[in-house]
Amino acid sequence: MVSLETTPPLIVSYPVQALSSFLSVSTIIALTVFFALLCACVIIGHLLEENRWANESITALLLGLCAGAVVLLVTKGHSSRLLTFSEDLFFLYLLPPIIFNAGFQVKKKQFFKNFTIILLFGIVGTVISFCLISLGASVLFKRIGVTALDFQDYLAIGAILSATDSVCTLQVLSQDETPFLYSVVFGEGVVNDATSIVLFNAVQSMNFNEINASIAWKLLGTFLYLFFSSTALGIVVGLLSAYIIKTLYFGRHSTDREVALMMLMAYLSYMLAELLSLSGILTIFFCGIVMSHYTWHNVTESSRVTTKHAFATISFMAETFIFLYVGMDALDVDKWKSSNASAGTSVAVSSTLFAFVLIGRAAFVFPLANIVNCARKRDNDKIELRQQFTMWWAGLMRGAVTIALSYNQFAESDDTSTQDSALMITSTIIVVVFSTVVFGSITKPLIGALLLRHAKPLVSDATDIPSLEDLRLLFIEDNGEPGDQSGSQPAVRKRSSLSLLISHPTTTVHYFWRKFDDKFMRPVFGGRGFVPFVPGSPTGATDE
Amino acid sequence: MVSLETTPPLIVSYPVQALSSFLSVSTIIALTVFFALLCACVIIGHLLEENRWANESITALLLGLCAGAVVLLVTKGHSSRLLTFSEDLFFLYLLPPIIFNAGFQVKKKQFFKNFTIILLFGIVGTVISFCLISLGASVLFKRIGVTALDFQDYLAIGAILSATDSVCTLQVLSQDETPFLYSVVFGEGVVNDATSIVLFNAVQSMNFNEINASIAWKLLGTFLYLFFSSTALGIVVGLLSAYIIKTLYFGRHSTDREVALMMLMAYLSYMLAELLSLSGILTIFFCGIVMSHYTWHNVTESSRVTTKHAFATISFMAETFIFLYVGMDALDVDKWKSSNASAGTSVAVSSTLFAFVLIGRAAFVFPLANIVNCARKRDNDKIELRQQFTMWWAGLMRGAVTIALSYNQFAESDDTSTQDSALMITSTIIVVVFSTVVFGSITKPLIGALLLRHAKPLVSDATDIPSLEDLRLLFIEDNGEPGDQSGSQPAVRKRSSLSLLISHPTTTVHYFWRKFDDKFMRPVFGGRGFVPFVPGSPTGATDE
Repeated sequence: MVSLETTPPLIVSYPVQALSSFLSVSTIIALTVFFALLCACVIIGHLLEENRWANESITALLLGLCAGAVVLLVTKGHSSRLLTFSEDLFFLYLLPPIIFNAGFQVKKKQFFKNFTIILLFGIVGTVISFCLISLGASVLFKRIGVTALDFQDYLAIGAILSATDSVCTLQVLSQDETPFLYSVVFGEGVVNDATSIVLFNAVQSMNFNEINASIAWKLLGTFLYLFFSSTALGIVVGLLSAYIIKTLYFGRHSTDREVALMMLMAYLSYMLAELLSLSGILTIFFCGIVMSHYTWHNVTESSRVTTKHAFATISFMAETFIFLYVGMDALDVDKWKSSNASAGTSVAVSSTLFAFVLIGRAAFVFPLANIVNCARKRDNDKIELRQQFTMWWAGLMRGAVTIALSYNQFAESDDTSTQDSALMITSTIIVVVFSTVVFGSITKPLIGALLLRHAKPLVSDATDIPSLEDLRLLFIEDNGEPGDQSGSQPAVRKRSSLSLLISHPTTTVHYFWRKFDDKFMRPVFGGRGFVPFVPGSPTGATDE
Repeated sequence: MVSLETTPPLIVSYPVQALSSFLSVSTIIALTVFFALLCACVIIGHLLEENRWANESITALLLGLCAGAVVLLVTKGHSSRLLTFSEDLFFLYLLPPIIFNAGFQVKKKQFFKNFTIILLFGIVGTVISFCLISLGASVLFKRIGVTALDFQDYLAIGAILSATDSVCTLQVLSQDETPFLYSVVFGEGVVNDATSIVLFNAVQSMNFNEINASIAWKLLGTFLYLFFSSTALGIVVGLLSAYIIKTLYFGRHSTDREVALMMLMAYLSYMLAELLSLSGILTIFFCGIVMSHYTWHNVTESSRVTTKHAFATISFMAETFIFLYVGMDALDVDKWKSSNASAGTSVAVSSTLFAFVLIGRAAFVFPLANIVNCARKRDNDKIELRQQFTMWWAGLMRGAVTIALSYNQFAESDDTSTQDSALMITSTIIVVVFSTVVFGSITKPLIGALLLRHAKPLVSDATDIPSLEDLRLLFIEDNGEPGDQSGSQPAVRKRSSLSLLISHPTTTVHYFWRKFDDKFMRPVFGGRGFVPFVPGSPTGATDE
């Protein structure tokens, strides 16, 4: 059920006109206002581009709040909502294009170079944060006076508030100036989304009557299964699209068909994953990565330009849409009325939750970063404190996933706990709005001061590993021109692959992947070098 | 209420899996199957590109029928529908991008050159067809045994079956080889859609208890008001978008914002028109024309490529979606059961309707074309019989607008006439499927044989009016270089504007429009010549 449902009260307050008989008046009014606000967001966002404090998300959120207030006044306090928040709309139509575009535009080399750190932060970190928030809420909430929640609710709260939203930070970080930080923050964001949604689903489906030690192992097994099968599905669909377009199309007839097929197959991968009970987010993310590596190189040049910008535009509109939506939804009087809590309790619950968000994130960022530092021998490789602080800060904001999960858990719970459930929804909204507006507006000056003041490049962002050229010299092979190579580098002895894998793991894996890619994958699925002309990858930089 | 509603019976027939808890199983299954079918349509459509008989619409329709049959078998005759037909989905999300893209890609010069013929066919012709079909149905249906319909129903049938779908013919005609035919068929299609929807709305809202002569005048007044105000609204929104992008943007920051703003404002124009009880179709069509004339020239080059192809792709997907939908919907058992008519009655009603479609169209195409021929003095200007036949043929197919209007009229009528109402829906579906599949597949060879066999260009398509350069020489002006111009053309005397307007009306209007455009419009709203580099218009040809 996809529904942009409109709330009936609005019809009453407007004179019913003799409209086109196909559409209901309330739908038309709601959509008109909503699209006008979206236009306003785009224009204001552009005007504030140079501003130190504001960005698109904050603009959309504040504009949504204003619009909600106006609707509240017009309907005389009856309702602030033009559209009711629909999880289906969010999970079916808004989230997929955002995640797909993330995979499509990510700098693949940096992403895979930092893959272990990303997984460590995105999975282990999210689980730590989940445990801490659940535990903290269950201990402290009873003292505040929230008593109607059960064990499952507390676990759900942990999962709900572990879902970060790093859009604000990513708008500040530059892919070119701080590639390490960007790729870690970005990658952690995607993996974190998937982890917290998987955790949330697990919490909802678990039977808490038979708690025993094996549950943790089951959860781990489920998670690993989900992670690998979702990734595999995304890769398979992506490769299939590349194969189909390379074999059948070859830019013969219409450029529109290529673009349409890429869009449709990307979306199909998401729906297939949901159909197979996998994580659609991970699937469409990896589908995006594969499509940008293979499929994108098989299409005509106008299709390349079109897909690159069209996907980014759709993702941008979906993001703006979500923040506007959240802003308008925040002033929903029904929720505030049914929560029935005093302002004091509301503030207490929200600040408790927010404190645990801060602590829960600090509790894994700094320890995990130091563990990574211990494993790395060279000083150059270590993650500096400034970088650790940025990584901590980047994950403090909460966004649309938090809201959607919170509605899913608390909007339709049983009658006995209605008040406290409504209180949880309003508190989540307070956390999301506060963290986005206040923390989001501090982000730009803070990160700017922290990172850009220093003229010298951050160590981990400098080229601290041997380049691919150097590595290629290390693997001196019998590739037809031995005399030429050994002549230029006579002192280098052939070293075993194993020792290289140990000394430079990432680069070695990359080297073998490149060989495999060039020899087997690209001839079948296309890709750079196997099509006549390539004007730059979708990431806009030389990247491979 | 936007709803991709899924029919409950399907859930029963599939094992309910432990899916992601956010989406219902039936929604996921329906969407997965639907997007897989869309992908199949795109691929098969590409493979059949060279085929004489098939095209994308027919492929989608047949694939939809097959999928419907499979679902019917799987559910053991319970239901053939994955998704129920929703008028809202059609009028809110599928029709606007198709019409906008039509305006955005149309060759403006040809379109406005043939504007009077287009209006004559699109408005007067549609009204003639509407009257004939209504009259014929009301006379003949009673003899077949359809008795439960009232006067308003017959008028609605006339409006429903006057809405043509010229997609099949436009796929065959070439904008470059037969510009006259293409622009007339194309323009008539858009105006026809608007006219038949306006007629349908008028029929639904009219009070038939007080029929008198003034009703026809009222209807005419309403129509003219709708036509001009809808057009004006589209032009205003289009100019606004051009002004905003020219003044604020200038390709400064992000190319995505430009594309997003164009999409959002186009959609906003449609919603605004619906809000003001105007014709959204006309509004978004003219908004598309203005955007391609001004806005498109103000954006960065990648935005130009992106918008050109992205709009075409979205329109293409919406069209395929509609035909697939109609195909799947055709086998809906509930409708066939509730119509309760014998096969004989069904066939009789459908063939009667189809006969009136043929006659109703012939009754205005040939007379109107001959009237136009009488008004034109030169033999060169006259519309040949071959062209008249093509114009007649192009409007025989019926499509999604017909289905949507038919549902709107007959799906929720009162109980007493349920059987005959259901019969009307099934008959409409038969007419749509038959005309699209049978007539659609004959179109390519027929039009090919009719037009392309002749080596010499069709007269009306040849350059039969004086070119702009010639005209400019006729208006010798005091524009700073009088000596130079009078030197090269000393014999030409300055003629009055009025006599020129009479002798070459279209070209004269075009000339003055160009002067006005260059002097007042383009400096304010941008456009070709007022931006640094222009790589060709969205129509892909030099066109102004």
